Amino acid sequence: MTRFAVGIDYDGSHYRGWQTQQEGIASIQSTLEQALSKIANHPVILHAAGRTDAGVHAAGMIAHFDTTAVRGHKNWLLGTNTLLPPDIALRWLQPVSDDFHARFKAIARRYRYVIFNSPQRSSQLAGKVTWHYHPLNVERMQLAARYLVGHHNFNSFRAVGCQSRNPNRHVHFLHLTQRGSLIILDIQADGFLHHMVRNIAGVLMAIGQGKAEPEWVQELLAVQDRTQGGVTASGSGLYFVDALYPPQFMLPKEPIGPIWLADLL
Amino acid sequence: MTRFAVGIDYDGSHYRGWQTQQEGIASIQSTLEQALSKIANHPVILHAAGRTDAGVHAAGMIAHFDTTAVRGHKNWLLGTNTLLPPDIALRWLQPVSDDFHARFKAIARRYRYVIFNSPQRSSQLAGKVTWHYHPLNVERMQLAARYLVGHHNFNSFRAVGCQSRNPNRHVHFLHLTQRGSLIILDIQADGFLHHMVRNIAGVLMAIGQGKAEPEWVQELLAVQDRTQGGVTASGSGLYFVDALYPPQFMLPKEPIGPIWLADLL
Repeated sequence: MTRFAVGIDYDGSHYRGWQTQQEGIASIQSTLEQALSKIANHPVILHAAGRTDAGVHAAGMIAHFDTTAVRGHKNWLLGTNTLLPPDIALRWLQPVSDDFHARFKAIARRYRYVIFNSPQRSSQLAGKVTWHYHPLNVERMQLAARYLVGHHNFNSFRAVGCQSRNPNRHVHFLHLTQRGSLIILDIQADGFLHHMVRNIAGVLMAIGQGKAEPEWVQELLAVQDRTQGGVTASGSGLYFVDALYPPQFMLPKEPIGPIWLADLL
Repeated sequence: MTRFAVGIDYDGSHYRGWQTQQEGIASIQSTLEQALSKIANHPVILHAAGRTDAGVHAAGMIAHFDTTAVRGHKNWLLGTNTLLPPDIALRWLQPVSDDFHARFKAIARRYRYVIFNSPQRSSQLAGKVTWHYHPLNVERMQLAARYLVGHHNFNSFRAVGCQSRNPNRHVHFLHLTQRGSLIILDIQADGFLHHMVRNIAGVLMAIGQGKAEPEWVQELLAVQDRTQGGVTASGSGLYFVDALYPPQFMLPKEPIGPIWLADLL
């Protein structure tokens, strides 16, 4: 038995999300498992560092699977990519030790949320960004973002249906960068609650637009009540960009995506 | 009667091209004309600076139309964008003098051709770039590109079916830039023959890959014979990015796209 780790890119626009919810409806997971199973010639089960919702993308998802099949590296990587649709691709694949687990060994996850702040929408970036036509003040958003960094109870920032027993998360950093009409929110934490990044993005956009003061974030953290929170921002601007593991697993380090932002940040 | 100029962005992946070829099959032109006609409440005909083929994009197409309708700027611009599908958008719209003509008054056109040079394809950029997995030497491509600048007979670089009576064109510049895995060919000329940019891209990629020497371009220009030329590169990496007009028409100057490259070049 060999355990493999894989790096995965996908455009989630046409999927109901990462996870297989229902027999017969294509998920990103099931599409990948089908392709890998064909190469392996036995059923393959993928375990991912995180799950993304419908319409959410990944530019650096990490997952693992076990196989008894013996194939060359080229067969695994190029063979699987040939079987996958254009909106899903493996970036890399490598054998890992048996104690690796994409979900349970991850010590941090990183997301990017991309806002296209322009009076007109972009046809080039349709589905790949969140279009916000009211002008956003990035400095106000940066002020607000500072309150979120560190160890907090994020009850006000998680989906009502979120099933995690622990509402506490440690946000390692939360950067906001502007490049032309694009505003990129770059956030890393030990883990994320359901809709946490999109709820943070919704609150920061409201503050950037002047609907609320940066201190509102402080109040929301204190009140620990989702019903006080802001709008959940669209999934189309959200990218799972990285998962971090202890160095002993020696996973490859790729540039942080999405690819069209790789060189910007 | 008012004449309007419009700036247009589109992702051509799902269209047979700019031009209406056949009744009932959606073209970018017919989709735009339908939306504008609804706002105008009379049939609108669009004239564009250039025509793009199936799968080719535009990040700065310019066109004009005439109307007897009197509408506010917001109605025209936002109203039309609301009626358009996500992969087509107006960037701007403004009244112009009656002697403006998007096709006949253009003194130059500019295209960008975007190559994703990487061993693995990108799901993020599917349909938006041309994927080339053999490593390309950009310096060799730059050497070759120099021969194309200036006034030349481009018979070896146009489609066999190209209907233009004049095979001569003046290439104002042809820059090649590398940003990470992206190689961007940026070309401006007084006009382009059918498939000219894609044939140039095909020849430059062959040279970049080492299949031919940079001097091959010189030979092709001299022989003036398409059958001696290279492969026509895929339309998915091609963007019509600008049309230039005499300053008297006072058209707005937007950043050169595609938007996800706007700040790179």
